[in-house]
Amino acid sequence: MEYETPLFFRVIEYASRADRDVIDMVSGKPDWEPPSAVRDGLSEYATHPSDAFQYPPSEGLFELREEIARRRGVDTEHVVVTNGAAEANYLAMACALERDRGDEILLTDPVYPYYPGKTTMLGGTQSFVPTDATGQLDPAAVRAAASDETAAIVVNSPNNPTGAVYPAETIHSLVAIAEEYDAILISDEVYDRYDLSGEFESALAAKSNHRVVTNAFSKSMAITGFRVGYAIFPPKLAASAKSRHMLVNVTASRPAQYAALNALRETDPEYYDGNRALLRERVETFTDALEAAGASYTTPMGSFYVMARFEEYPGTLENVFRLIDEAGVAGMPGEAFGDSRAAWVRFALVTPRVEAAAERLAAFFE
Amino acid sequence: MEYETPLFFRVIEYASRADRDVIDMVSGKPDWEPPSAVRDGLSEYATHPSDAFQYPPSEGLFELREEIARRRGVDTEHVVVTNGAAEANYLAMACALERDRGDEILLTDPVYPYYPGKTTMLGGTQSFVPTDATGQLDPAAVRAAASDETAAIVVNSPNNPTGAVYPAETIHSLVAIAEEYDAILISDEVYDRYDLSGEFESALAAKSNHRVVTNAFSKSMAITGFRVGYAIFPPKLAASAKSRHMLVNVTASRPAQYAALNALRETDPEYYDGNRALLRERVETFTDALEAAGASYTTPMGSFYVMARFEEYPGTLENVFRLIDEAGVAGMPGEAFGDSRAAWVRFALVTPRVEAAAERLAAFFE
Repeated sequence: MEYETPLFFRVIEYASRADRDVIDMVSGKPDWEPPSAVRDGLSEYATHPSDAFQYPPSEGLFELREEIARRRGVDTEHVVVTNGAAEANYLAMACALERDRGDEILLTDPVYPYYPGKTTMLGGTQSFVPTDATGQLDPAAVRAAASDETAAIVVNSPNNPTGAVYPAETIHSLVAIAEEYDAILISDEVYDRYDLSGEFESALAAKSNHRVVTNAFSKSMAITGFRVGYAIFPPKLAASAKSRHMLVNVTASRPAQYAALNALRETDPEYYDGNRALLRERVETFTDALEAAGASYTTPMGSFYVMARFEEYPGTLENVFRLIDEAGVAGMPGEAFGDSRAAWVRFALVTPRVEAAAERLAAFFE
Repeated sequence: MEYETPLFFRVIEYASRADRDVIDMVSGKPDWEPPSAVRDGLSEYATHPSDAFQYPPSEGLFELREEIARRRGVDTEHVVVTNGAAEANYLAMACALERDRGDEILLTDPVYPYYPGKTTMLGGTQSFVPTDATGQLDPAAVRAAASDETAAIVVNSPNNPTGAVYPAETIHSLVAIAEEYDAILISDEVYDRYDLSGEFESALAAKSNHRVVTNAFSKSMAITGFRVGYAIFPPKLAASAKSRHMLVNVTASRPAQYAALNALRETDPEYYDGNRALLRERVETFTDALEAAGASYTTPMGSFYVMARFEEYPGTLENVFRLIDEAGVAGMPGEAFGDSRAAWVRFALVTPRVEAAAERLAAFFE
């Protein structure tokens, strides 16, 4: 399976060359403001003495790790600050494969395409467990797919692209399955601040040496370009994760770490509530219009994405290009997320023009 | 071989717990000021609209890649902006090993310890080619060591830890050897702005599809914590390097990229000349005092480091700890760089107290 990039870039490129106004709903870049403390932190950092511009500890600024550990109720020693959730997931998958327990990574279908891409890069093999129509994952199906070959199970809740949020039972069952097969559950929780359902359960709730939780400030603080994420490792994996992190990156960028730390300390819950409310509104606006247009669609429990399916208009790359040209709306072809959603198109609700986009789609499919 | 970290951290930690004033000459963090345009760039970036805080192109801000390409006389398409030279070297070594030409990486002895660490992590094997007493590398010895198993030859000039700068003949011969064996020469030139000899030759001078040049702004702009580096790949390796970069990191941190771009554009040659002059002065001060103390030492042609050997006082970790406690000077044990320099201690000239350090050492060894 190809990972997201090629398709993703081809869509972005095509949209940018279009001879008309196009509403960009391709990728998960928030269009809302970061906390003001991000900007403040960065300007403040710029005035620091030059020794603050040198290497921080490899695993991250101690105060940032401490702040994360305190909030997440874990030991600071088990937190590694990474170059975004991307590196956090890469480290977690690499460490799981290094354990010599087998080279298989269990993924879901549909899947966030970077996971299979990372698996191949790391020399692992993928197996896909289908989710149901709403994106929910049946732990029994995961247990049936697991074996001695299973190095890791990688899940993402709130989910990209389905918008599913896994209930507590699912998360706890997945941790139990990882324990049963001596595998690692990797729980990517990067959309945790965008849970619209109230159902979100972090895998941290299950005390276990068989789970890694990954996260980032990219989405929660609307700073996808800053590259500050983290992973929380069980004690046995922390050392090898830190080694790999040091050998690949030395450390995450310090100005960005400092800005994220400042924002973590200074940002009120209202900031996150406000973004969630905005997203909820957009989901309603967009799905109402899709409903009126007679399309099938998912109503996300969390994350930024709505998937839509239009009668006799499968979400192929070609059809996505046509939507750009003829409707002026750019989404992601469903095939990017695996065969099961090939008929669908994913729309990211990261534009104030969600209503206009829905109207354009309705007019096109009328 | 262990990579640098454990030893490095143990020394730093030991020095920080010492019950006395210690002059820190352990790691290569410049103590001089970054260009003012780094600070300006960062403060300016902090005021940008929030879409400037989102993902830049994976391979780096286009203007930064263009600026690098223009200065280095290469095609923008072949430049990948990385999370420091660390990631640049990691990508280059990974791509060389992925070519399926053998899994051996030729390194020098002494060696910058991250190279063998990365090799092991990537599933490769190391062979070491000894340099001479001044740190120079004989291309004939490299040719003799090369074989069909050789995936890459990794060199670093100006060199850490020896201070050697390879003459043009060496660099061109190394590229020729890489071509002969269908291997990749990886030339880490991160200290290029600290060539004190005027002898430095970039591997870019040899047009070849068999060399990768890595570099970073970490040392040249005194911003080791920012993590902005780059690699220049031959056309055939660029695509796989970009894929891996995307899958591991997505992109380097954007605020840091922006600050580096601003500094690249706005910084006069005098900035670099001034740092070089400062370093030259420190080398003289430090080696004069070592001479007076009757120690053996290297006079670096470039980079930040002087290696010293004291009569009947080998540079073991234990002896380095004793120097911290009894002389108040912290260096790196030579064994960190391979057996050939186990008798030596490496001192990084990144403190204004170079003279005091030399006097303390002289008094200790009197």
